Amino acid sequence: MRISKFVTPEIIYGLGALSQVGESALRLGASKIFVVSDPGVVAHKWVEQALDRLRQVGLAFEVWFDVSSNPKDYEVHEAVKCYLDMGCDAILAVGGGSPIDVAKAVAILATNGGVIQDYEGVNKITRPLPPLLVVPTTAGSGSEVTQFAIIVDTRRKVKMSIISKSLVPDIAIIDPAVLQTKDARLTAATGLDALSHAIESFVSLAATPLTDVHALNAIRLIARFLRPSVACQTDLEAKGAMAMAALQAGLAFSNAILGATHAMAHQLDALLDQHHGETNAVLLPYVMEFNQIACVEKFARIAGALGENITGLSSWEAADRAIRAVRRLVRDLGIPESISVTDLSGEDLNRLSRNALKDACVITNPRDVTEKDLYDLFSRVLKRGIQNDQ
Amino acid sequence: MRISKFVTPEIIYGLGALSQVGESALRLGASKIFVVSDPGVVAHKWVEQALDRLRQVGLAFEVWFDVSSNPKDYEVHEAVKCYLDMGCDAILAVGGGSPIDVAKAVAILATNGGVIQDYEGVNKITRPLPPLLVVPTTAGSGSEVTQFAIIVDTRRKVKMSIISKSLVPDIAIIDPAVLQTKDARLTAATGLDALSHAIESFVSLAATPLTDVHALNAIRLIARFLRPSVACQTDLEAKGAMAMAALQAGLAFSNAILGATHAMAHQLDALLDQHHGETNAVLLPYVMEFNQIACVEKFARIAGALGENITGLSSWEAADRAIRAVRRLVRDLGIPESISVTDLSGEDLNRLSRNALKDACVITNPRDVTEKDLYDLFSRVLKRGIQNDQ
Repeated sequence: MRISKFVTPEIIYGLGALSQVGESALRLGASKIFVVSDPGVVAHKWVEQALDRLRQVGLAFEVWFDVSSNPKDYEVHEAVKCYLDMGCDAILAVGGGSPIDVAKAVAILATNGGVIQDYEGVNKITRPLPPLLVVPTTAGSGSEVTQFAIIVDTRRKVKMSIISKSLVPDIAIIDPAVLQTKDARLTAATGLDALSHAIESFVSLAATPLTDVHALNAIRLIARFLRPSVACQTDLEAKGAMAMAALQAGLAFSNAILGATHAMAHQLDALLDQHHGETNAVLLPYVMEFNQIACVEKFARIAGALGENITGLSSWEAADRAIRAVRRLVRDLGIPESISVTDLSGEDLNRLSRNALKDACVITNPRDVTEKDLYDLFSRVLKRGIQNDQ
Repeated sequence: MRISKFVTPEIIYGLGALSQVGESALRLGASKIFVVSDPGVVAHKWVEQALDRLRQVGLAFEVWFDVSSNPKDYEVHEAVKCYLDMGCDAILAVGGGSPIDVAKAVAILATNGGVIQDYEGVNKITRPLPPLLVVPTTAGSGSEVTQFAIIVDTRRKVKMSIISKSLVPDIAIIDPAVLQTKDARLTAATGLDALSHAIESFVSLAATPLTDVHALNAIRLIARFLRPSVACQTDLEAKGAMAMAALQAGLAFSNAILGATHAMAHQLDALLDQHHGETNAVLLPYVMEFNQIACVEKFARIAGALGENITGLSSWEAADRAIRAVRRLVRDLGIPESISVTDLSGEDLNRLSRNALKDACVITNPRDVTEKDLYDLFSRVLKRGIQNDQ
């Protein structure tokens, strides 16, 4: 029994919870709040509703919407300049993982200075951050509750993992109503992102009884509610369950960390123009097959949580069912089984494998991972890249 | 779907976690820390070990061990005088629910002033509290993670519930090793206290998907590990599971509140000389029978969590099994089915019922409760009191 730490924000959850934005910002002591979002989110009414709540409580704000998917270092540096120039003292993020991670990165630089590269890795932040309030608009990244921020280093073309307890937001406001404006494809990608968080944290070497509870429950909810949530934009029962699943998967991986799926996805995200959740979804079954010999009992429990009938099966047979069920779910949601990359050389594959081996998520993968293992996994997932090179 | 709030402390869990006391206190910014415990805890080595950790990091401290079971208003008032006189600026509690609740009450008065009666009820605390670090030495009260403090008003002879988010400790250090010095009777009483928290919060009107996860898991752990924990003082697997169960039951009831069992126990605690957990254990099956028509489906899920075989049973039959399993567990641990009170009049019974109806926990009981209902329940539980009076 290792000594483990478990940290969460204050969580406000429920239909209409967005209405709590103004009161929550005041409670955090904000006098001028920096509002981070992105154009996709702003196109819907949620940001405007959040700003209305700030106006109602008489709170000054500054908006910053220049955030891209897989957010970049220079975006953070521009945003923090605005934060400081405008004299803000608190941050509100309304959006998916990208705006939330930019908000976290701005918070770091606002009080700690330097460039975002200075904080890559674990526990590099020394000074307290300004208050951080987040409203997730996707059910996937879990960033609303995690101690992670992921920012692309554009020069090195890698995703940097910044990990620190001080990145856990002060308040997370989870309103399933806001999930109704996401299209089916984004709903699928973000939901499968949450599934990869839940499964990787459950089998992580840093898993604890407390993270296991959240991980398993997230798997149960995703198995039951992700398909209907993708199928129908206004199914509020499914949206509520998926918001809770993403949150619980976030609580699990924030405190138990992840595995090889994410170590690999972090490399591909900086390279490919597709959603991080889709990349994870493609990688996950391959990595599960690789990990199976390390954690067959836990995989059997995953099968049960996925709703598979495992009565009378051996652990090994049940574990097989878990992988099969994940493949089926990914296929049902229209995600392909491999990733097409036409201009990838063998040397590129070597570089991806080398970088993935350096990623913090490799450390907690349940099975020891070598560069050769990662090369083999990348080769299976990126089939065309290899064919091109041969 | 109501809007709900969920708050937890930072949780440090694991064998040997007590060693984190010094570093944690420093991290909270303490310069002189007020250490609250009680003579029963001090008799073992845990308080001395905690003080050693404070010495190692060079942190000044003041000790206060004058805490009784079911702690009293005047104990709090004496303690806070010492805290202020000695110029302390943070609080460490090492003990069961009583020292932790005294520590919380001292924290309130240290920065908010007045007497502890001023803060009875919900959200009466206006100013921030000093940093609060807690090390529970029992697996029961859950106070290490809750927004509750329970203090006896000695003049009115009632237990006051003080409820505020600011009472959630900053850091809870959970070390199962410290549970090894508790005798079987205290282990049983505190474990059944945790069971009553889990069951009452699971069926509470304020339950949420997040509190349900913790409540059900606590029930599962208690059903499996409370008997072996009572049977063997050094069974560390059982101690670890019970520490986790008490913590999760605490997370559940801190955020979902409780029900009639606790509304009634709060009255009897101020009257009887027995552990709060034993009182809850006696009351729980009676209140479950009363509540069954309000939440038969949830009771059926409780039966499953308690390890009952409910395959093929109707919800009603499964719910019956839940109550039967609780009765069996209570009996196995040597707790009687009723409470002997030889000098209780009918008027006393009326007063108990009137006061229980005013308790905050009645509001979230799943079935509407009248004064007559409470009178009938008290009459069944306190059999000799009634017989004496007739």
